[in-house]
Amino acid sequence: MRRWVLARRPDGAATVKDFNLETVPVPKIGDGEVLLKTLYLGVAPVMLRYMTNETSFEKPMEIGDVMIGRGVGRVVASRNPGFGIGEVWQAKLGWREFAVIDDDPYYMPFRMRHTDLPLSHGISTLAMSGFTAYIGMHDIGAVTPSDRVLVSGAAGGVGSQAGFIARALGAEHVVGIAGGPEKCRLLTERLGYGAAIDYKIDDISNRLDELFPDGVDVFFDNVGGALLDEVLGRIRRRARVVICGRISEYLLPPDQCHRYRNINCIGLRDAKMESFFVYDYAEHFDTYETQLAEWIRDGRVHPLEDILVGLEQMPTALISLYEGTNAGVRMVRIDPDAERRPAP
Amino acid sequence: MRRWVLARRPDGAATVKDFNLETVPVPKIGDGEVLLKTLYLGVAPVMLRYMTNETSFEKPMEIGDVMIGRGVGRVVASRNPGFGIGEVWQAKLGWREFAVIDDDPYYMPFRMRHTDLPLSHGISTLAMSGFTAYIGMHDIGAVTPSDRVLVSGAAGGVGSQAGFIARALGAEHVVGIAGGPEKCRLLTERLGYGAAIDYKIDDISNRLDELFPDGVDVFFDNVGGALLDEVLGRIRRRARVVICGRISEYLLPPDQCHRYRNINCIGLRDAKMESFFVYDYAEHFDTYETQLAEWIRDGRVHPLEDILVGLEQMPTALISLYEGTNAGVRMVRIDPDAERRPAP
Repeated sequence: MRRWVLARRPDGAATVKDFNLETVPVPKIGDGEVLLKTLYLGVAPVMLRYMTNETSFEKPMEIGDVMIGRGVGRVVASRNPGFGIGEVWQAKLGWREFAVIDDDPYYMPFRMRHTDLPLSHGISTLAMSGFTAYIGMHDIGAVTPSDRVLVSGAAGGVGSQAGFIARALGAEHVVGIAGGPEKCRLLTERLGYGAAIDYKIDDISNRLDELFPDGVDVFFDNVGGALLDEVLGRIRRRARVVICGRISEYLLPPDQCHRYRNINCIGLRDAKMESFFVYDYAEHFDTYETQLAEWIRDGRVHPLEDILVGLEQMPTALISLYEGTNAGVRMVRIDPDAERRPAP
Repeated sequence: MRRWVLARRPDGAATVKDFNLETVPVPKIGDGEVLLKTLYLGVAPVMLRYMTNETSFEKPMEIGDVMIGRGVGRVVASRNPGFGIGEVWQAKLGWREFAVIDDDPYYMPFRMRHTDLPLSHGISTLAMSGFTAYIGMHDIGAVTPSDRVLVSGAAGGVGSQAGFIARALGAEHVVGIAGGPEKCRLLTERLGYGAAIDYKIDDISNRLDELFPDGVDVFFDNVGGALLDEVLGRIRRRARVVICGRISEYLLPPDQCHRYRNINCIGLRDAKMESFFVYDYAEHFDTYETQLAEWIRDGRVHPLEDILVGLEQMPTALISLYEGTNAGVRMVRIDPDAERRPAP
């Protein structure tokens, strides 16, 4: 089997040289362990911070360690009664073709129950990415039908689901921000947004004036920086600003990061700005999965997946997230037969 | 009776010339109306923004209008079955010795039920000021015993109650920030704070390092600006930053207000920053009043009141709030017999 390990720590943006592809034997399992064949692996901007040990929640990585990341796998051997052969699980599998896990909560395993739907949804909507969009809109944003909702990074992994979820929660005025006419078309034609703002071409301030003459109730932000500040100046009373990501600044040195002038609007308008960590909501994952699966089946949520093929694509899949060119949930299909169901 | 009216709109800081003291007849009441004799009137920094019509929640003031403000009054005449003669009510009475109100929800009347306690508490702890401290610590801050709690403006109206409330909710590590050794002594000797930081003398950064080596869980902020930014850089995972006031910047033009550099800590640490409007919690006022009255009786909360005497003091009482010299809840006793109970 092949696996990707950390070759060196990136200095700013990651490059393919920061990773090594190794070939090693498929491991044997011991008592309490389970062997999963990796079907899909996800990538997310936060992984760059795993490589530099900059997150407080992920275990520190040493040079030579297998890259950390969640994936979907099928149980092919089990010496743990909690995992049955043939079951499909999401977990922190790491960037490898086979993974051994056990009951350690570190792996955050979560059995996929809606396997009639594409298993790739175990990286997208029925997984941390979809749960993140759901928590942001439902638990933090508390979206109601009268709310005027704005999403930045709206064509991205989480953003491509956030618009659907806001609408499924009843909101009628849901606007997305993305870069370039192609992505903006995607927002309105494919991703459920009522209107789109192109941050590369449009005068953002004018467009916000047009689309939110009375201000924004819920801002789901994946971008941070000057855009967040601009929207803060336009929040309505009791607005909820959901801080999900800050892609515009992840690669900037601190002294080049934006300095916010509209923070006072939080106080003036009795608003809140809140961030969250998806795993803190783990007790609700079953509920989220069931709700999202229902919305997928009834057509209210259409996962947009951006699937590369082959383990060798992993570094490229991650690095190019920072180029802002991808739309939907980026993932890599590791097993060519990932969607083939076992004979009944 | 005497009353204060708006003479002109302040330009920056208010001065006594912005107010006129008038003498007018005590009004007669019509059907559904009630006449209250004013016992106490409160002042709060936000009142300056009433005078310039800068709040979204208070009705616009014209020149010549009676100054807006809450007070405690005793019912002396009533043609409204909801208000009994002799009862004590808090409401938006305005700056006058007698006030006529009716059922209009604008007045936000609230009957004082714990009249065994000093009626001045109807301006302080058993009123909007105490409810604000309670909501900030309990509803927004969700203080638990293990939380490390910091309060700015800790000797001020709300701050002088916030420390007591955090402790009553179980927190053991409660630190206040105030200006000058006298106020700091007050914090630790009188206001329930475990330690004090003197923002005028101390190196705030060093003191925060000492007192919060692992960071701040709950920051109850009355000050805003550079101090808020400094604390944001030190928040712990899932911290709650309660935005209650911004006294350091109310008088500054926008281009001189602080530009925040540590907002990214909200996202990095899955934290929230939230402001609120006390009246949005009106359905809970009875519960808050009962809880706070219980804590006053059992000694867990000691209201610190800063009582000036005589309606003529009202402008001075308000203006000097901005000088940062007062401690506790500033109010003016309008009726010299305010605390004399009617014969049974």
